Amino acid sequence: MATKALATWALALQFSNLTAPVIEIAVNSISNWAGCAIAGYEQPASVHAMDAILPFVVPQGNSTILGTDLSVDAQTAAFINGIASHADDYDDTHRDNPIHPSGPVMSALLAVAEWKGSINGEEFLAAFVAGVEAECKIGVAVFPEHYNVGWHITSTVGTVGAAVAVGKILDLDVAQLQQAISIASVQVIGMHESFGTETKPFHVGRAAQTGLMSAVLAKAGLTGSLEGLEAERGWSHVVSTRENLTAEIDTLGSVWEISLNTFKPFPCDRIMHAAIDGWIQIHDQAVQKQLDVTKITNVTARCHPRVLFLTDDPEPTTGLAGKFSVYHAAAVSLLFGQATPTQFTDEAVQNSTVVALREKVEVTSDDAVEEHESFVAVEFEDGTKLEVHVEHALGSYENPLTTEQLKEKFLDQVGRVIGKDRATKAYESFSNIGNSTDVADLVKGYKD
Amino acid sequence: MATKALATWALALQFSNLTAPVIEIAVNSISNWAGCAIAGYEQPASVHAMDAILPFVVPQGNSTILGTDLSVDAQTAAFINGIASHADDYDDTHRDNPIHPSGPVMSALLAVAEWKGSINGEEFLAAFVAGVEAECKIGVAVFPEHYNVGWHITSTVGTVGAAVAVGKILDLDVAQLQQAISIASVQVIGMHESFGTETKPFHVGRAAQTGLMSAVLAKAGLTGSLEGLEAERGWSHVVSTRENLTAEIDTLGSVWEISLNTFKPFPCDRIMHAAIDGWIQIHDQAVQKQLDVTKITNVTARCHPRVLFLTDDPEPTTGLAGKFSVYHAAAVSLLFGQATPTQFTDEAVQNSTVVALREKVEVTSDDAVEEHESFVAVEFEDGTKLEVHVEHALGSYENPLTTEQLKEKFLDQVGRVIGKDRATKAYESFSNIGNSTDVADLVKGYKD
Repeated sequence: MATKALATWALALQFSNLTAPVIEIAVNSISNWAGCAIAGYEQPASVHAMDAILPFVVPQGNSTILGTDLSVDAQTAAFINGIASHADDYDDTHRDNPIHPSGPVMSALLAVAEWKGSINGEEFLAAFVAGVEAECKIGVAVFPEHYNVGWHITSTVGTVGAAVAVGKILDLDVAQLQQAISIASVQVIGMHESFGTETKPFHVGRAAQTGLMSAVLAKAGLTGSLEGLEAERGWSHVVSTRENLTAEIDTLGSVWEISLNTFKPFPCDRIMHAAIDGWIQIHDQAVQKQLDVTKITNVTARCHPRVLFLTDDPEPTTGLAGKFSVYHAAAVSLLFGQATPTQFTDEAVQNSTVVALREKVEVTSDDAVEEHESFVAVEFEDGTKLEVHVEHALGSYENPLTTEQLKEKFLDQVGRVIGKDRATKAYESFSNIGNSTDVADLVKGYKD
Repeated sequence: MATKALATWALALQFSNLTAPVIEIAVNSISNWAGCAIAGYEQPASVHAMDAILPFVVPQGNSTILGTDLSVDAQTAAFINGIASHADDYDDTHRDNPIHPSGPVMSALLAVAEWKGSINGEEFLAAFVAGVEAECKIGVAVFPEHYNVGWHITSTVGTVGAAVAVGKILDLDVAQLQQAISIASVQVIGMHESFGTETKPFHVGRAAQTGLMSAVLAKAGLTGSLEGLEAERGWSHVVSTRENLTAEIDTLGSVWEISLNTFKPFPCDRIMHAAIDGWIQIHDQAVQKQLDVTKITNVTARCHPRVLFLTDDPEPTTGLAGKFSVYHAAAVSLLFGQATPTQFTDEAVQNSTVVALREKVEVTSDDAVEEHESFVAVEFEDGTKLEVHVEHALGSYENPLTTEQLKEKFLDQVGRVIGKDRATKAYESFSNIGNSTDVADLVKGYKD
């Protein structure tokens, strides 16, 4: 009954059911997504996907490709915006699960809202939250088995999240939404093997487009299972050796998954953030003590085992690969005292000083260390040792970015691409989405 | 090395490497696919998918939606033709594995050949065979574990088959094709839970479109893994508990998977064909003995266990569901002595005489019975018993449809939709593909 229960709950959800903290974090999620999508358009993954798709698309339509002045059909906009939103690995993450919730849902939902028109901010927020709850509940229900075998959980559950959000906006009935969920669930997108390549952000765009089309197909009458999530040879059993769907679906509306969302302070795999936080602190201490960070002789980190599971790449050659190399992250954090998009370019990864330092980094796994915790240390030529214990990484649930910090992140990230003035206007639009009478206007705002 | 070995082999394959039997069965596969795709456009799955996609597509382009006069962009044509080609469940099947090889590959490849133009029949055949070999080798490598857990293997491997065929036509280099294979492989489409709904044929269309776009994306520069098939957290390990990739890839060019292709005489799940063959024989005996088939009191079949695994639906309500109900198949075969598209309509499934007889059918599983074997029996009111042992079902590898029978099937299937004259022209075009100087002309031929 999980599929029916989810569809029923999602369609019944109203803006008035959302608590104030849920609304606040939903709005922050949306503006953080918008920053990533606008700025991410410049990344190679987005550019290559645009080059690929344009021969198949007539560039007319109502749905904006963020970061450009182009409008296209909604499925193409969802596809490209989804890729762009994840291309910098600078998005959001669920506290208990490496799901980046906003990418698949927002990329699909905004494209559809622009296509349909006359969707107000409150309706939009309710649909967005419904999509996020859907994908996170089913993701939590199959975690960690589903993830550990190699699925990229953001996109595998993201198809369903996008289908739910879009299905709600398109006014599907319960049976249609059950079928939309099932159609989305049999299209399982994304594996770890893509990490460090442009296929990783591609997963998110494809998930957004897949979920969107699943809702559209169900509305057009394409029949599907009514029990896609829980059926014996349906989603949960096919993609995971364990599932806990019924229990998770039962908590819809009482445990808000979106309230567990967190935002990345660094544009790279979140699992390294605790170590990066520590190394940046060490950099700052070194500056204060007038120690030369190029004279570091060795670097260590004791971390949660998933750090090496995901980021054990000693010799990245592209900026994208650098986002999944704890060694590169160590080097730039220690040398520059920051981990912004500038530190994850091809140039940064190939910089000889960075390369020299990353070769001195040793990382060990420790089951007793939490995901957002790290013990990092460095030693200098003169024998000086500095060490830091990060209990809760910057950007983690216990040490979150504030709304003000998120605004700064947005202005920095987006300002690099479209300038500070337009970035400020874009931030104002997206962060005031709750008051919008037509969400399609948000995007027009920043284009002018 | 499986991904690289597959890409290298596929790009090197020339028409001159194909043996005469391989060419013959490839051409039969292509014309059988074309018949299914042209006729299948009338099925609800195709119609609903068209309704869904049209708001996103400008109906102009070079790629034909078979069964219509519409031409669109290649990814949309691949999508719709793929759905149509599987909508009747009348397509082809690998001898050792329930892969329907032509659907994903042909749907993608023909659309691309029309888009690109100037692809001759020999080039086309080489690309088609490369795609079929690719999907079948990787499918055999993970069968039966991958299938038994619930994946619809036609579409899960079909993305890769389509990517290989299209990548070859688009002149990708080896590294690009490795990436195209990897991009396709992380998009895993289709589960058994969709069987009996329109989502099942949707899987095939989506696989065709996914494979096509994976090749286009790789050519446009979207980076992906070079080892998507064999990597620890890549395709084979994520989707199956067992894999035998290296051994299967090693047989490329020595064991031709396409030579194991078979064609369906009945438009329904192939696993029931041995029983249907037997029941039709019983019908014919009954007619000869002047026994009234409406006076049958009970029907039995002893079959391979996969018959009940896949078709144990005692109360189908739609023609589509009837294709996956061994009870419905028994009733129509015994009552009408045939199993053509006419016997798998909503009307046929709801016919009260059919319903009355299907309730008298009992099927048992027997591990000692082969997949293409059956022991069927019926009893009449007057106590007469008739029984038949089918050793090799009509259409199986050991008892294949001849080229002449395939032509009859095509003319019947396609003639129902576009009339006998156009059907004949269409058959002539597709069955002479080897002599074509531009494959795009094949489709023009039947449109005139």
